[in-house]
Amino acid sequence: MEIVRRVHAMKEIAARARTTRRKIGFVPTMGCLHDGHLSLVRRVKDVSDIVVVSVFVNPTQFGPGEDLEAYPRDLARDADLCVAEGVDYLFTPEATEIYPPGSCTVVETLGLVDVLEGASRPGHFRGVTTVVLKLFEIVKPQVAAFGRKDTQQAIIVQRMVADLMLDVEILVLPTVRDEDGVALSSRNAYLTHDERLAARAIPLALRAAEKRVGDGEWDAAAVIDAARAVLESEPLLAVDYIAMVDPVTLQPVVELTGEAFLLLAVRVGKTRLLDNATLRRA
Amino acid sequence: MEIVRRVHAMKEIAARARTTRRKIGFVPTMGCLHDGHLSLVRRVKDVSDIVVVSVFVNPTQFGPGEDLEAYPRDLARDADLCVAEGVDYLFTPEATEIYPPGSCTVVETLGLVDVLEGASRPGHFRGVTTVVLKLFEIVKPQVAAFGRKDTQQAIIVQRMVADLMLDVEILVLPTVRDEDGVALSSRNAYLTHDERLAARAIPLALRAAEKRVGDGEWDAAAVIDAARAVLESEPLLAVDYIAMVDPVTLQPVVELTGEAFLLLAVRVGKTRLLDNATLRRA
Repeated sequence: MEIVRRVHAMKEIAARARTTRRKIGFVPTMGCLHDGHLSLVRRVKDVSDIVVVSVFVNPTQFGPGEDLEAYPRDLARDADLCVAEGVDYLFTPEATEIYPPGSCTVVETLGLVDVLEGASRPGHFRGVTTVVLKLFEIVKPQVAAFGRKDTQQAIIVQRMVADLMLDVEILVLPTVRDEDGVALSSRNAYLTHDERLAARAIPLALRAAEKRVGDGEWDAAAVIDAARAVLESEPLLAVDYIAMVDPVTLQPVVELTGEAFLLLAVRVGKTRLLDNATLRRA
Repeated sequence: MEIVRRVHAMKEIAARARTTRRKIGFVPTMGCLHDGHLSLVRRVKDVSDIVVVSVFVNPTQFGPGEDLEAYPRDLARDADLCVAEGVDYLFTPEATEIYPPGSCTVVETLGLVDVLEGASRPGHFRGVTTVVLKLFEIVKPQVAAFGRKDTQQAIIVQRMVADLMLDVEILVLPTVRDEDGVALSSRNAYLTHDERLAARAIPLALRAAEKRVGDGEWDAAAVIDAARAVLESEPLLAVDYIAMVDPVTLQPVVELTGEAFLLLAVRVGKTRLLDNATLRRA
């Protein structure tokens, strides 16, 4: 595996791959890789000739007072994991490579960015779409994978790709969970022992909502209440939002008709955790 | 020459050209082609294997109350002109092809869009960068040409291409003028006979500014005043702005040191006309 730090070097590798008709698969990450990321790598490897993983803690998707500085970083370990998965290139540029002085271009999916995570984190998704587009232009993947855990991010990236007519297939792959049901996340590293125990209520809340739907409840408020009751039974958790939304527009649905996402964010101590479930009316 | 109306068809043509290693040159236009556009086509043809011209009156770069509906259109004439220049593909999509329902992604070069033309036309450059990026993703040019007449647009497109790491070379080519010195513009068609006579003061004002610089005047205010005096001597003209700006940041310069642009916009009746000159300290 080659570790690539410069944009021009990565672009040359991508151009060479394109010229020789090898299919490039891409997994953009902020590092601190876990089994969720690795599940993306494995799937991309199955459908590509060359696998590129990026590790870039993107400053523009962090707001003032957020955890940019504290965000966990361990490139040596990330590199070992990538080698073990057969990754071909680990692209890990400096921030000044991606945002040189004077750069000022942003990409934004208006209408999808001010709700849910975007309401809690102004500018977050603008940072995400801007860096993802830049990475796509550098790495030139035919296929790229994102995790369902960050479902609003996945929906926004899919929207951007469609709107900008990009020739990249976006795979959105299932959330990987620990044995206790908690979704894998780099931010789980922030949790104390007690907070981690409390976080188990998050998947239980999603299961409670799914059960209500399975029992024939289509009313969004009732389904949300079922999830909220489980979360609120855990004193260490504070609900940021729970919403049932349209899977394309992210607008709230009042009654489940076809498919919807139940999205939630909770605070556990100083950590915000996200999770979600796909709900389908039978 | 083939007239292409569908995005998917244009993408297939571009993919085929890329596969066979033919270089694609691109001139994006809003139609109503004149010799300024054709000078771009000729230059692009010199350096490309395949020439694509787009004719698309982009709705998102027009503000409310602007001339979107009135903007001159004559596709049959545009097509004849393109055939005569040896253009290979004329891409002229419907607005719904470029902006399908639900599309909401915008591209913006923050900091360059709120000054000069952007101050007079809020949202204009967001529309420009958004459509240019979409067109680049569809047509996949290695080289694309823009006119120096719309110099803020050219600077913003160059900024976007650099920031988003796009693999397209941007050529910015000299303004083409009529015999009376007036810069060619599709909007010249709006002028009455008397307004057209009055518009001759615009290139005269630029020459007056250049002469002041040639005489050793580096003070921006003095140079601007020289241009303004010529424009204000013409009662049918109303100055919207005259500014001497840095060629990269578009910020006003107080004193000419290296190179700067003198940009101006004037209203002639209901028509706004742009022009500019490049000033260099000897």
